Amino acid sequence: MVEELIEVRGQLFELTTLADIVKCITLRGLDFEVADFEIAKSTDLPSWIQLRLRAGTEDDLRGCLEHITQLGAHVVDARDARTEKVEADGILPDDAYALTGLPTEVRASGTWLSVPDPLPLAAIRVDHGQRAVAVPLERVKKGDRVVVRSEGVRVSPTPPERESELLGLLGTSMPVMRPHGPAIARVAREVQRTRAAGKRVVFVAGPAVIHTGAGVYLEQLLRGGQIDLLIATNSMAVYDVESSLYGTSRGLYLRESLAAPQGAQNMVHALNAIRAAGGLQPAVERGTLAGGVFHACLSAKAPFLLIGSVHDEAALPDSLTDTARAREALRTALEGTGLALMVAEASLAKAVIQALPGPVPKVYVDTSDYDVNKLVTRGAPSVFALVDSAESFLRELARNLGAW
Amino acid sequence: MVEELIEVRGQLFELTTLADIVKCITLRGLDFEVADFEIAKSTDLPSWIQLRLRAGTEDDLRGCLEHITQLGAHVVDARDARTEKVEADGILPDDAYALTGLPTEVRASGTWLSVPDPLPLAAIRVDHGQRAVAVPLERVKKGDRVVVRSEGVRVSPTPPERESELLGLLGTSMPVMRPHGPAIARVAREVQRTRAAGKRVVFVAGPAVIHTGAGVYLEQLLRGGQIDLLIATNSMAVYDVESSLYGTSRGLYLRESLAAPQGAQNMVHALNAIRAAGGLQPAVERGTLAGGVFHACLSAKAPFLLIGSVHDEAALPDSLTDTARAREALRTALEGTGLALMVAEASLAKAVIQALPGPVPKVYVDTSDYDVNKLVTRGAPSVFALVDSAESFLRELARNLGAW
Amino acid sequence: MVEELIEVRGQLFELTTLADIVKCITLRGLDFEVADFEIAKSTDLPSWIQLRLRAGTEDDLRGCLEHITQLGAHVVDARDARTEKVEADGILPDDAYALTGLPTEVRASGTWLSVPDPLPLAAIRVDHGQRAVAVPLERVKKGDRVVVRSEGVRVSPTPPERESELLGLLGTSMPVMRPHGPAIARVAREVQRTRAAGKRVVFVAGPAVIHTGAGVYLEQLLRGGQIDLLIATNSMAVYDVESSLYGTSRGLYLRESLAAPQGAQNMVHALNAIRAAGGLQPAVERGTLAGGVFHACLSAKAPFLLIGSVHDEAALPDSLTDTARAREALRTALEGTGLALMVAEASLAKAVIQALPGPVPKVYVDTSDYDVNKLVTRGAPSVFALVDSAESFLRELARNLGAW
Amino acid sequence: MVEELIEVRGQLFELTTLADIVKCITLRGLDFEVADFEIAKSTDLPSWIQLRLRAGTEDDLRGCLEHITQLGAHVVDARDARTEKVEADGILPDDAYALTGLPTEVRASGTWLSVPDPLPLAAIRVDHGQRAVAVPLERVKKGDRVVVRSEGVRVSPTPPERESELLGLLGTSMPVMRPHGPAIARVAREVQRTRAAGKRVVFVAGPAVIHTGAGVYLEQLLRGGQIDLLIATNSMAVYDVESSLYGTSRGLYLRESLAAPQGAQNMVHALNAIRAAGGLQPAVERGTLAGGVFHACLSAKAPFLLIGSVHDEAALPDSLTDTARAREALRTALEGTGLALMVAEASLAKAVIQALPGPVPKVYVDTSDYDVNKLVTRGAPSVFALVDSAESFLRELARNLGAW
Repeated sequence: MVEELIEVRGQLFELTTLADIVKCITLRGLDFEVADFEIAKSTDLPSWIQLRLRAGTEDDLRGCLEHITQLGAHVVDARDARTEKVEADGILPDDAYALTGLPTEVRASGTWLSVPDPLPLAAIRVDHGQRAVAVPLERVKKGDRVVVRSEGVRVSPTPPERESELLGLLGTSMPVMRPHGPAIARVAREVQRTRAAGKRVVFVAGPAVIHTGAGVYLEQLLRGGQIDLLIATNSMAVYDVESSLYGTSRGLYLRESLAAPQGAQNMVHALNAIRAAGGLQPAVERGTLAGGVFHACLSAKAPFLLIGSVHDEAALPDSLTDTARAREALRTALEGTGLALMVAEASLAKAVIQALPGPVPKVYVDTSDYDVNKLVTRGAPSVFALVDSAESFLRELARNLGAW
Repeated sequence: MVEELIEVRGQLFELTTLADIVKCITLRGLDFEVADFEIAKSTDLPSWIQLRLRAGTEDDLRGCLEHITQLGAHVVDARDARTEKVEADGILPDDAYALTGLPTEVRASGTWLSVPDPLPLAAIRVDHGQRAVAVPLERVKKGDRVVVRSEGVRVSPTPPERESELLGLLGTSMPVMRPHGPAIARVAREVQRTRAAGKRVVFVAGPAVIHTGAGVYLEQLLRGGQIDLLIATNSMAVYDVESSLYGTSRGLYLRESLAAPQGAQNMVHALNAIRAAGGLQPAVERGTLAGGVFHACLSAKAPFLLIGSVHDEAALPDSLTDTARAREALRTALEGTGLALMVAEASLAKAVIQALPGPVPKVYVDTSDYDVNKLVTRGAPSVFALVDSAESFLRELARNLGAW
Repeated sequence: MVEELIEVRGQLFELTTLADIVKCITLRGLDFEVADFEIAKSTDLPSWIQLRLRAGTEDDLRGCLEHITQLGAHVVDARDARTEKVEADGILPDDAYALTGLPTEVRASGTWLSVPDPLPLAAIRVDHGQRAVAVPLERVKKGDRVVVRSEGVRVSPTPPERESELLGLLGTSMPVMRPHGPAIARVAREVQRTRAAGKRVVFVAGPAVIHTGAGVYLEQLLRGGQIDLLIATNSMAVYDVESSLYGTSRGLYLRESLAAPQGAQNMVHALNAIRAAGGLQPAVERGTLAGGVFHACLSAKAPFLLIGSVHDEAALPDSLTDTARAREALRTALEGTGLALMVAEASLAKAVIQALPGPVPKVYVDTSDYDVNKLVTRGAPSVFALVDSAESFLRELARNLGAW
Repeated sequence: MVEELIEVRGQLFELTTLADIVKCITLRGLDFEVADFEIAKSTDLPSWIQLRLRAGTEDDLRGCLEHITQLGAHVVDARDARTEKVEADGILPDDAYALTGLPTEVRASGTWLSVPDPLPLAAIRVDHGQRAVAVPLERVKKGDRVVVRSEGVRVSPTPPERESELLGLLGTSMPVMRPHGPAIARVAREVQRTRAAGKRVVFVAGPAVIHTGAGVYLEQLLRGGQIDLLIATNSMAVYDVESSLYGTSRGLYLRESLAAPQGAQNMVHALNAIRAAGGLQPAVERGTLAGGVFHACLSAKAPFLLIGSVHDEAALPDSLTDTARAREALRTALEGTGLALMVAEASLAKAVIQALPGPVPKVYVDTSDYDVNKLVTRGAPSVFALVDSAESFLRELARNLGAW
């Protein structure tokens, strides 16, 4: 019989954390008793509870600790975190600790160091025992010292920011059969609050933005300077150009709902036209491209990042085709982001969730309950997801922000 | 080796019909050759083709004829349709012919009689060999003479009405990832055209109309007299009352997107309040009910039909709880209908499709691709389906009709 | 400023309850402080906490108490519950308390009476101040005394039964992108445990059971006596007959995946054949019906309940067409039920959830994430939902139970 | 008033083509009359019809011809196709003709040249006026002569191959509410027929193959040598390794359906382990990787292609991270393919559809009606899509092929 004393801190609000931990201990077949606790008289003050955990074997105990540490428990009598040296660039030691995305501290030389910007699944590098940094697997360098296993690491489930308009929405998904107006109004106010606080609003857009005819709303938001960075797929940009040049999106007329089975010729011609021009900027300069989302970006000098996919017909000169480099570009471009709005593009949304510190609030909009729930799970607890069409969401958002 | 000469008539437009028939013959392993044909020089004139069909056995030939008759082929050298007497109310002879919902003629005493209002799956009653009537199974009476098997029956795939705004949309479903604006504008113009032509516009509403906050748009359409009949579920009406009395829909606030897990107490109280008042009309008179969709119906004197379901908590006094009687009420209430708009209520939509003559155009709106495609298949070729939320569809419809 | 002392009891497991209550208080803008608490040393023993709740107005306080009572809080200094007399059959007093479906006690003459079989949304009738009974709205009688408002009522969130195989699954939904084998194995063991405990296993089936070709598995389960009651829609039974007579289900061959657009003639003929025979039992006796799910029911003497819908073409003689009577029949037939398996039939599943005491475990299987999540929410915390096809679920269930 | 004589050829089977063309002409507001036709007496022989098309302006006429050429019409009095010189690598002349994926001929020096392997959206290069080749945009070279506009191009809608087991399924999608067994049996027989004919069977797999526990079936198919090439995402391979090393897939146990919220640590460790080993092959050699799908590939010497995505945490050494190079690798690897089975991976499925000649039959399996219908549309008419889970499809496929 081995045992360990663990502690969970937090506000009464967050008692789900404790419930989860207790459930996890019980499901793993371990036993515990309450050793000590303090429950604060009021909601502002933290409460805490200590549990004495008992297991039959050291392995069971370590396994359980590994698990509940992810959930927010930490060992009371903590030792310093163990670190190991990285032997080669981009390769971690076995058992390297991977961040959950939640606010995390690591114990070094007897002190708890906070890890700023906790990127989900990144390793923790400890510099000179004095500074902790989140480092994605691809960025670790030979010689770095990174934390292994979960000893000396503590995670605190974030209390939602009190002043955020998204409070109460984060961590949930709103099904289609609910009134969306009030939720979109909150998202709009969060856009304003974020920008007022000097942080950046990032917009992620998939092809559905163009296919549904929602490009016009995004265009107005960009022209009004309400979006600081646009991240899109190569194909979204191609369809945007196609709709400017021909009024179609993958061969279907946007002004006409008729199913016009014209094939995708226009798409190829649009793609080819930008390739021939040497890119979106030169195409605008030559007058080839005179409208649409990317014309708005270039006019408003809003930066954008275009990312290619294997299923593209071909890449625009502006698109990053190497996915590893695109990931790196994302990490850099996303610094200083205070809010991410992501519409109908699950692959890029996942990439952005990974490249943003866990606590940054994120909104995901898509039409499938399944995709939307998956994103909430992946980005918990900082994602709010809405089952809605790109067109319906963007129209209401633009209205709420005075852009339409 | 047995054979039969069949004919297919139609405009060049409708050659899919011929293609379907040829495919069916081939898949069933029968052989055929072209006997004669005439292809009209212009699109207004009908073309026709005759095929000599050959099968190994009489059974194979009859089976195939049975099948392709449903698709629009008919035997050239037709005999009169065979009829048999109904032996008991509501019970058909074996092998009674069931209508497809498409325009149909039946041969009696050497003459082709058209069947007015061809209800899908109804039997054909022939009165005194001179008049053909579509009779649903439940309405056949002892002594009726109804057509058996498919001999002497011919079906003509309808050419879409040239002047209808829904031309080109009927028979298809529009996925969420398309611009819905132009399609909804067409639906709105069809509403106007139908009413201008002196026909009735029927609206079918499920609970999602209330849950999504779209009740306000439906209310305005009713107050403006743009809907001639409202058909809804008992629970839709209960939620409408609940939202008027408490601002909630099954315990969730409509003005607030927050997930407020308040339980469904309000729903029970709303239901009980109308039961206590003795119905919706007395509740309005007493001032208990002062707003909402049904208040609008009663104020505007728009008739409504409420239909209960086994999963209701209890029925409102206004609701039909017997489903057989509800079906009968539907058939009567739907006479003279020129357009059916059906939102987020698959069960009632199926019932309405069955109770309306096949050619009447129908629009179905729901959020699931699967449900929407199923409805199109069931009501082909006169249903246009749109994957959209009740709120988004009704808001745009009301705007297009000047009601919002 | 008004205040009230409330208490929440439970095991550490259930602290989510406390978290929900604290969140609810805060969102409603009320204030509180912790007055007293006791946290048990081990998981078997209950813990409790008392909060002093403060509101600006009496109304705010009452509103909040109403709400958190539903979540499991109760007033410490409880008075007896107030009851009022029912004035007319089937009509409750205003503000009648509606059960949540969770285990509930009501205080009468200073004693806490437990409400056996707490049906969701039913009222609480108190007989002679000594016995509490859950009574659905439709069953209340003139002269009954029922509880109004939430004073003197306390709800306890159920701890999941330790020995249930469904422990850990209840209250959740499993998406399609997970391994279903282990979950179905648990469901199978729960079937065995339920029957071993002398309780009944109820099966609810929609048309998809026949359409997907899963009828053969359900048939074997029935023949093997593993299901105590079958509840199905009228149309499911019609398709079952159609598949026995013609090998088709709404005109599509089950042995052939080819899309055979044969129309629904066979369905009408099957329906008519049973109507002509006078019902399923006589049809079996005459030899008209020689196989399928209902043949299996009748052979195995497993009782069944068939419920009609407004969208049926017509009803079988065996079907209940009145939905209010069907509801009543369900309530009676479901007595003694220990487990409900419900496949691809959301409307009946909702009806069964309402007619079964909250704590009875329920399994719902359907192909839409959205429907499945809705059912879990409605039946929380006693529903486990699985996103799967009827065919895939029933095949694995039959295999696990040795029936295939 | 300008006019042009056009012709449509084909079997009676394919009259849908003619119907589509007539509908297209009418919707565009042009007029026509039938000039001549010949309808073959039997199904083996081709029929043809000539229409005289009339338009108000040359532009309208050209626009319409452009459109109906895509559908299978061609100008009777055809001139040679116009070609233009490519000015720079990877950039087409304006108005370059893009293939539809259907069998196509191009007229050069008065002769009709067939375009072998018509890749969808590729350009047509004409070499010395004597050979036509399909060239994807990315592969065109400076100096190539490619066809511009649609003159001198004719497309023939393919008659489905008579001997294929997939006949009758291609071009459709089968919803979840149908019996899948017979369809999967056909797919299995098509696998055997394809390999017997000396062509290659390609399998495309997404992460759901691992998440649902279907990896074991794919493994057996590979070990049995029934798959000639495996194409997968980087993340699918990572989850395969994770499940071999830890029994989990993104932190969820595969043997246990319990929702174990363990986070994605194991995934990072699995990814890191293969990176540390230098790739999958060395990991197998060292004994790090002793099972799973890729172990099966390497043991059975089945080639595989791994393709990275921007949302990967990091890439395995075996994965192509550059999407343009991945596209090129796909085109090369897919040569000689006779059948593509694609499971739960829409992005790679789209890439494969683009990289395979149109007529090659393709099967797509996924759980969303929406995704499945989109793929059928994109790959029409050579895709058959099935709404099913990866686990259910692969288990039945493996059984049918004797691998399970």
